[in-house]
Amino acid sequence: MDTDAVRLTLPEVHALAMQALTASNVSPGNAQAIADTVTAAERDGCGSHGLMRLPGYVAPVRSGRIDGRATPVLGGAGSTVLKVDGGRGFQAPALRLALEPLVEQTRKSGIAALAISNAHHFGALWYDVEAPAEQGLLAITFVNSRPVMAPAGGREPVFGTNPLAIACPRPGRPPMIFDMASSQSARGEIILHGLKGQPIPLGWALDGDGNPTTDPEEALKGTQLPVGGGAKGAGIALMVELLAAGLTGGNFGFEANAAYDGDGGPSNAGQLIICFDPRRFADPGLTDRVEGLFGRIEGNGDARLPGGRRLEARAESLANGVAVPAGIYQQARALCTP
Amino acid sequence: MDTDAVRLTLPEVHALAMQALTASNVSPGNAQAIADTVTAAERDGCGSHGLMRLPGYVAPVRSGRIDGRATPVLGGAGSTVLKVDGGRGFQAPALRLALEPLVEQTRKSGIAALAISNAHHFGALWYDVEAPAEQGLLAITFVNSRPVMAPAGGREPVFGTNPLAIACPRPGRPPMIFDMASSQSARGEIILHGLKGQPIPLGWALDGDGNPTTDPEEALKGTQLPVGGGAKGAGIALMVELLAAGLTGGNFGFEANAAYDGDGGPSNAGQLIICFDPRRFADPGLTDRVEGLFGRIEGNGDARLPGGRRLEARAESLANGVAVPAGIYQQARALCTP
Repeated sequence: MDTDAVRLTLPEVHALAMQALTASNVSPGNAQAIADTVTAAERDGCGSHGLMRLPGYVAPVRSGRIDGRATPVLGGAGSTVLKVDGGRGFQAPALRLALEPLVEQTRKSGIAALAISNAHHFGALWYDVEAPAEQGLLAITFVNSRPVMAPAGGREPVFGTNPLAIACPRPGRPPMIFDMASSQSARGEIILHGLKGQPIPLGWALDGDGNPTTDPEEALKGTQLPVGGGAKGAGIALMVELLAAGLTGGNFGFEANAAYDGDGGPSNAGQLIICFDPRRFADPGLTDRVEGLFGRIEGNGDARLPGGRRLEARAESLANGVAVPAGIYQQARALCTP
Repeated sequence: MDTDAVRLTLPEVHALAMQALTASNVSPGNAQAIADTVTAAERDGCGSHGLMRLPGYVAPVRSGRIDGRATPVLGGAGSTVLKVDGGRGFQAPALRLALEPLVEQTRKSGIAALAISNAHHFGALWYDVEAPAEQGLLAITFVNSRPVMAPAGGREPVFGTNPLAIACPRPGRPPMIFDMASSQSARGEIILHGLKGQPIPLGWALDGDGNPTTDPEEALKGTQLPVGGGAKGAGIALMVELLAAGLTGGNFGFEANAAYDGDGGPSNAGQLIICFDPRRFADPGLTDRVEGLFGRIEGNGDARLPGGRRLEARAESLANGVAVPAGIYQQARALCTP
């Protein structure tokens, strides 16, 4: 174990998150939903969406830009298009409110959508589709965000890192979940390279003049590049933008930016989740057949199923807890006093 | 005009396709649906899905691997999950049968899916989502195919070039349509480089030993690379595989391959189309807001909206017809005698 790390059980991680959030005027119910995602991220080895994020949750609540006590409101109940208005709060409580109705509706109609708007997404995306897949549904989701990426050939950022995720149920095992940003690299990776004084790989970003750069500072002032560097990746970002914001009524990235004052507050973008009940589509269904496909991926050279490392970290964390860097632990502790 | 080209009006293109197909035991109704996609491809400057494809349509019908007189059967009518069994025929007539019910159902329930199986997809993918978008719906589609692409880190092809497409309605204008293959390059592009004796760019493919190659022959014996070259592109291909084949009951790529005898016949893969009625999701809806987003893309340096060149070609073709390479014209003419 890293001597600069603090070993915590998962219940301790959860309690710490709860304490930091409720001390900052997040209601207990909302804090619960957020602490669950933070704990799941720590559990699965995704530290970048774990306790490290608590200051990012707390700051916009303290500044008043996000309502920590928001009560999300469910619309469209009983129809195939469910909607949640997050009430200018966080996305985690909004999704929690709609999850069971979404699963029920999907079982009934074979397909159903959930549109989340007026809520700030700040967690790991794979988490959002795992629960429906644990209940036997195929689930996909799309989230847009503040613009950091220009369309292919352009210079002015229009798209966020616009991630998408898909979760596929597996018989007797945790779902297979693939998630990705539409950008070649995570924004946090560029920031991290800057903090370490390291150049970024060519192909991640252009500087403010539209030239390829390896300088993290210049990259952050310029535009990130989409996956593959060209029109396909930018098209994926556009697809996410249309589904996540266009359909839901959330802000397009450029609209979010116009309202942004640089305090790290909410982008008020949107999220779309679509669930499918495989048994309503074909017989034999996806779950009966998918292991054959997965078997062709695993054991194919060095190929692995997406999310494999995450599930290995999960097994380890459930057995032995997690090691949290001391700085992140202290930061979280400091938030626990109002 | 190219002296080696034959100039045809669009009705002449259509008549030529009809004649070639019906002369090869494709029923008039099925031939109509196919000739429509072939003509639309020629009209929009997508020659690779135009008259050039007629031999590929005709050969498996003549060999009996595809039933040119198949009658597709619609299932799930009145529900949000529509299904078409293509009856071992082509996908174009199968989609045509389900299109109106799909649009109607989407208007009713806000979201609806169409699962096509037991049908051979051989056309341009953008075509499949244009009609719903012309009627005000947002539409996305996914098609899988015979394996030519290994998962990231693997050597054995598992995924097809697995394309996806999204069509977005625009007020008073043709829909914006983005379509892409999950692979870095189209397979046809590699074949074309081989025919011209040109090397392919590094990053398109690996040879049979898993090494990067610029040799088209070696590439075709090895594995194509996914967009971006790594895990993200492979994940997109996996997503397409799960949605297009996993949900619909179509063959996964590896299953299609097991049944393949190399005659260019059908892969019997699957297709999923999902339609959304924006007015059922948010107010103001997507169509009211999307021009603001598109305006940020066009006029952003050299950036263009996806499909722009296609629509320019369309305007030109509608006015002046199309120039078809003489070889392709002669090939099509030759098919018109049974």
